[in-house]
Amino acid sequence: MTQADVKELYERIPKHIGVADFIIFTDEGVKIESSFQDEETFKYRKEILQFALTSRAAIQDIDPNNELHYLRVRSDRREYICIPRDKYFIIVITLPDKIQELKKMGVDKKDK
Amino acid sequence: MTQADVKELYERIPKHIGVADFIIFTDEGVKIESSFQDEETFKYRKEILQFALTSRAAIQDIDPNNELHYLRVRSDRREYICIPRDKYFIIVITLPDKIQELKKMGVDKKDK
Repeated sequence: MTQADVKELYERIPKHIGVADFIIFTDEGVKIESSFQDEETFKYRKEILQFALTSRAAIQDIDPNNELHYLRVRSDRREYICIPRDKYFIIVITLPDKIQELKKMGVDKKDK
Repeated sequence: MTQADVKELYERIPKHIGVADFIIFTDEGVKIESSFQDEETFKYRKEILQFALTSRAAIQDIDPNNELHYLRVRSDRREYICIPRDKYFIIVITLPDKIQELKKMGVDKKDK
């Protein structure tokens, strides 16, 4: 992924309905972009990036020919989607209930 | 979840199309049911159950009012779905490409 790819991603992600926040890290935990303040970003690095890296390693241990495509963690109000891309990890936090509501109203893109 | 619930689950899960294997653990790692041989079951316990527990803790750390509903890990050929239920963890391994193929043929349940 080039710098331009990261920039394009940074502009495209928020246009999807129901996206509350997102972070782009290198897989060494360096923050590239984040919609959060630093304190929250570093909490996500400690929690979500950590187990995203663990899950990537677990997949490789179970089947070395298998690669992690993505990881989705659904909780009551949010869904955390972690997508590895080259040496980056993209973490997107969505609001599933809001997405459903908007889809019922026939809305599929944020108008911005 | 009662013993009867676990039994009912054990019979229902394999009827879904594209389910390759599944395991039911207690969240302390005791095997309740598994479609694998023990060696494979314990590999999953070490790998998948471990990060399912980690993800449940991460969700609670980020937002104590939030509970893990499920965790989906998609790799090239498989998807690992981990669902916490009371003191149990249900791990289902599916074959997404097979599911898509069967759905195109209008098949939505295994005829067993």
